[in-house]
Amino acid sequence: MAVYTEVPAEALEAFLAGYDVGPLVMAKGIAEGVSNSNWLVETTAGRFILTLYERRIETADIPFFLTLMTHLADAGLPVPRPVADRAGTVLHRLRGKAAALIQFLPGVSVSEPGPAHAQAAGEALARLHLAGASFGRARANALGVAASARAAGQLGERLDSLEPGLAARIARSLVRLHAGWPGTLPRGIIHADLFPDNVLFLGTRVSGLIDFYFAATDLLAYDVAVLRAAWSFSSDGRRHLPANDAALLGGYQSIRPLSKDELAALPLLGEAACLRFLLTRALDWFEQPADALVTRKDPLAFARRLTHYAPA
Amino acid sequence: MAVYTEVPAEALEAFLAGYDVGPLVMAKGIAEGVSNSNWLVETTAGRFILTLYERRIETADIPFFLTLMTHLADAGLPVPRPVADRAGTVLHRLRGKAAALIQFLPGVSVSEPGPAHAQAAGEALARLHLAGASFGRARANALGVAASARAAGQLGERLDSLEPGLAARIARSLVRLHAGWPGTLPRGIIHADLFPDNVLFLGTRVSGLIDFYFAATDLLAYDVAVLRAAWSFSSDGRRHLPANDAALLGGYQSIRPLSKDELAALPLLGEAACLRFLLTRALDWFEQPADALVTRKDPLAFARRLTHYAPA
Repeated sequence: MAVYTEVPAEALEAFLAGYDVGPLVMAKGIAEGVSNSNWLVETTAGRFILTLYERRIETADIPFFLTLMTHLADAGLPVPRPVADRAGTVLHRLRGKAAALIQFLPGVSVSEPGPAHAQAAGEALARLHLAGASFGRARANALGVAASARAAGQLGERLDSLEPGLAARIARSLVRLHAGWPGTLPRGIIHADLFPDNVLFLGTRVSGLIDFYFAATDLLAYDVAVLRAAWSFSSDGRRHLPANDAALLGGYQSIRPLSKDELAALPLLGEAACLRFLLTRALDWFEQPADALVTRKDPLAFARRLTHYAPA
Repeated sequence: MAVYTEVPAEALEAFLAGYDVGPLVMAKGIAEGVSNSNWLVETTAGRFILTLYERRIETADIPFFLTLMTHLADAGLPVPRPVADRAGTVLHRLRGKAAALIQFLPGVSVSEPGPAHAQAAGEALARLHLAGASFGRARANALGVAASARAAGQLGERLDSLEPGLAARIARSLVRLHAGWPGTLPRGIIHADLFPDNVLFLGTRVSGLIDFYFAATDLLAYDVAVLRAAWSFSSDGRRHLPANDAALLGGYQSIRPLSKDELAALPLLGEAACLRFLLTRALDWFEQPADALVTRKDPLAFARRLTHYAPA
């Protein structure tokens, strides 16, 4: 949660003058996003999110993300649509950063989702997978198993300072993932980070799917495994929530039934998902001072989930 | 800029259920306020700011601030009105903190205000002073000259690490202020912190006066001196902006003419205002690590202004 770059109202007004959105009425820097700065912007024409891309995001990837968001919005999904300026351009620069004005969607993220939320999230992810099939572009998943293996090597024994024996547990998981990776399962566009904070709800209806900045081309069932790891546990990973799990699988399969092979692969893919979040969180943990601008997320929340998919 | 306390949507929904504002539609933590956490909250009934009082604010003072805001809103000033719950209560507790739901006002803060903005701010401050006359409560200004003297003593020679000779300059100013304080000038409710970031504009019209958490009873002309120190210089204090200064004094006096004694006291009161911001910023400077959650403001921006009112 952060706003890393100052954008004075005067600079924002000059920026918005390139769009057909009328004069500025309100702008509030909002505490969302760890790799970008975001403002909730209101003009006489409506509300928007202004995003400045700060770090971690490869500038070359931004057109992929923005084009994907437009494609999914066109397909009727509740995905915020990037707004084009008068010249038809969506990607700009502001205060030295890549910047985009994006449709605002109402709704709130739920901290402790229940089965009704999990079912709706499952349905939404399946619709996203179906709509992604007609998207013409591809992007390699930069946070797949190979990246987890690199991160584990980079972290080395420091992992054991988080929890004794963690480095060895991760090494065993990596061996299993390399040996058993179900590479022939259906592939397509995945969100890759559909945690509860990236789903907006009005009641139990999904009103927004946001933060596509990890989206990539990979196994669709892997995205289901990420969803399960995110929604079927208490956020600290201590409690498995079987009712959420059943509801999200039911919701997903009501739109896109999983094949027998996909279902069989889910535990291994869950292990991969847990490793991905455990290891990126661990990298952040050792990289960031405890009092930094961004709240560190506990890597062990995913070590606990890992135990669910791969009992020690 | 910060959100210090997490408020899950579920907790917010339970909190709002006590008000007659309908269901929650949106909540965004916003990057405003250094002594409190703020959310822009939308319900089916409209938009609000939810404030959690975090630190620096004496809990016993909060009813004064909220009652004053209501009084000024009743008087027709563009001051956000605290919202009462169904039981008529405005001050609550949420997540262990004092909390209030407050009317949302549109508008943007201007980073580099020009004369038209300064004139409008001057008019608004004069209206605030007139409306304050019928407010029945008083609160001692906790950041007056006595507080500056205490802060200077506490900081001691560390001030010279900011700028050689600064401690002695401040000591000389404090002597002048104690000797010449114009204590018989008209007193009343002052905002005490009406910087450009606390004034919302739609165009050059003032749409909001916000952040009353330093409001107190003190010399009205001191509040004018604060306004001048805030609006009549570039934000780094390097350039005096005489056109802004003339416009804000003209705007103020079009509503409430200053007496000859008040006008004569303005330079000394300007010195007092510069000391107050210089010293509270210096305390923050030495208290906060450079990488803390809140951006440190440069104390020397007010040492430079001090030179304008009290040439070395």
